[in-house]
Parts: sequence; C-alpha cells; structure tokens
Amino acid sequence: MKTIGALVFPEFQTLDLFGPLEMFGWLPEEFKIITVGEKSGSVTSRSGQLIAVDRVVGESDDYDLILVPGGPGTPVEQPNRAINDWIISASRKAEIVMSVCTGGALLASTGVLDGRDATTNKMDFQWAVPFGPKVNWIGKARWVEDGKFFTSSGVSAGMDMSLAVIARLLGHETAMHVAKCAEYTWNNDASNDPFAVQHGVSRPV
Amino acid sequence: MKTIGALVFPEFQTLDLFGPLEMFGWLPEEFKIITVGEKSGSVTSRSGQLIAVDRVVGESDDYDLILVPGGPGTPVEQPNRAINDWIISASRKAEIVMSVCTGGALLASTGVLDGRDATTNKMDFQWAVPFGPKVNWIGKARWVEDGKFFTSSGVSAGMDMSLAVIARLLGHETAMHVAKCAEYTWNNDASNDPFAVQHGVSRPV
Repeated sequence: MKTIGALVFPEFQTLDLFGPLEMFGWLPEEFKIITVGEKSGSVTSRSGQLIAVDRVVGESDDYDLILVPGGPGTPVEQPNRAINDWIISASRKAEIVMSVCTGGALLASTGVLDGRDATTNKMDFQWAVPFGPKVNWIGKARWVEDGKFFTSSGVSAGMDMSLAVIARLLGHETAMHVAKCAEYTWNNDASNDPFAVQHGVSRPV
Repeated sequence: MKTIGALVFPEFQTLDLFGPLEMFGWLPEEFKIITVGEKSGSVTSRSGQLIAVDRVVGESDDYDLILVPGGPGTPVEQPNRAINDWIISASRKAEIVMSVCTGGALLASTGVLDGRDATTNKMDFQWAVPFGPKVNWIGKARWVEDGKFFTSSGVSAGMDMSLAVIARLLGHETAMHVAKCAEYTWNNDASNDPFAVQHGVSRPV
C-alpha cells in the first residue's frame, strides 16, 4: 500500500486534483490518498466545492507519492513558505512526484525541478516558465517523465499522466484496466499534445 | 446565472461529479454550483475525499440544472426516499437533468426516465437497466439527449456530456472554449462510445 499526499489550497483547479484521484481511487488496495493543506479544515476548489484537509503540511512529509495541482490559487506569485518547505522535503522522500497544470510552476519555484525536463499548462505556459529558470521546459508534451518527476500539461492531462504513473508502478495492463473502468480514452503517448499548438506553444523554450 | 444542484451521497464516484463541475466551473458567471445531500455535513467520495454538502434535499428542489452522479454508493438497490423525492420534484422544475454513470440507474429508478431514451455505465449496464424497465436504454452511446434529459455513460463520459449541455445552452463555440481551457479532447459525437464494445454492450437492449 502506497500513500499519496495530494496538496490542496484555496482555488485549486478541481480536475487537476480529482482527475488523478479518480484514477488512483480505482486501486484502493494499492493507494491510500491523503489531502494535505497548509491549515486544518477545508479549502474551496476553483469550481466552489469545499474539500476537507486530511493532514496539515507540518504533520508529515513522508508519502510514497505526492501530487501538486495548479489553478488560480496556486501559491507561486505569493509564495507560501510552509507549502514550499513541504514540497521540498516531501519531494526528497517520495518515490514519485507529480504536478498537474500550473502546479508545475509551483514545483519549479521551489527548485526541485532544477536541471530537469518538465512541462506545465499550455494556456499559461509563458506565465509559468519564469518560475523555473533552471528547468528544461518542454513546450509540446502531454506530460514529461524525468526520473521520479512526472509533470503534466493543463488540467485534463493529469489523468493521462496518472495512468502513466500507474503503468510505471503496476504495469501497463493495470493502467489500461483503470482507464477501461473509468471509461476514459487514455492518451498514452506523452508526446501527443494537441493543446501546445492550440495555445501557441509549439516548441521547447 | 443558472444554478446547478449537484447531488452527492457517500461513495459517489469522484469523477462523475468533478468532471462535469470542472467544465461548468470555467463559466462562473453563467453557472452557480450547489452540492445537495440528504443530510447536512459532508460525504466521502469513492476515492476518499470529504466533500461538504452545501444544501440538504429538503431545502430546495428549485435548480436550473441537476446533476446525478453514480458510483458504488448510488442509493438504488436500497432506495433513499428523501433523495428519490428530490430527484422527482427537482427534475420536474429543472431545465436540464443530467446523470453520469450509474446515476442513470438512480434517475431511472424514480420513473422520471419512463418512455425516454437513456444510457448509463457500460461496465455495469446489465446491472443498471432493470432499474428502469420502461426506459428505452441505448447500449452504444457516449451520452443520450432526450428533451431535457442528458444521461451519460460511465465516469469520464460525464465530461463529454457536460460540454454538450454547455453547447446547447451557450453554443458550440463556448463548449469548445471550455474544452480548450481544460486541455480536454472533447468527444463531441454522442454515438462514439468505444466502451460499449469493450464492456460487451454493443446493441440496444
């Protein structure tokens, strides 16, 4: 049984979090999901739902996987020290570190992606990349794997990336099984990113 | 501004709810989302997150749209009278009634789909259809529109259906815009249902 520490903060992008959690949630004997927030209580998602914080950042930095969503509330222009410290120490201990959407900018802003290949949301690509000046940003990628770091493009791309994580940990057949249960057409080609072009990001920067 | 009453109950399927809410959530000036539960407090999603109930069923049955998710906790084998009464009266008043996955069996069990075309989850299709003996179940459909009723296939199909609802209410361009923002490849052909065959449901029943 592996634990997933899923970061939440006010105005996180709803599907950035719940797309991946849907996929991991099909394997309850393999993954235990814990939402992690700065403070105890609840946070409101971008679409307005109140989600409970299971643990605060100070309680533990010890998870097998961590998941960092994005969204309008991503604490990157106004950095949050407690969250950044958690990302840095939890990333060190985790077997897999995931970001979705502008969560990639947050990961990058802490320095944990320095020297690595990564991607992020395509609609806000030009806004995001300066937060990681030492990151090798890939403009056209549904998601990018570099060692233990899996960074995905915007919102829905988190589902494709999560299935890739499941494939790495448990095999391709298990990932295909989850996609079938969720009646989800998995884009399992990380280089197939139709939104890079749609949002005018067509080359590495 | 239209209101969406989104039903929640313990062990609802995570993406059945949050896939559609992601899509409607991109249009905060058009849609206000309210979670509706049997009791005040919170419910736990199938993947284990605690979600607040904004209003109880007895508080109001007056929403412009209603959304009925499915999942292992769908109260259909053990019917819940308060929820069923809400579905019946809220469906009468609503402009649009949506179900995702086995939420279609719940809708059907209340009789509101009698005489109508509808679909539901494909993995559990044979389990679901007896709950609506007077429904014209469509075996191969990503979603089905019949008047104000939009019923979708399993889990991820709720996102495709929600974009079709947005297209009906606000135009195709708006739906395409939302899909692009969410970096979601919209399957906008309701008859394109790859999972009917994968789950052995290849014809109307």
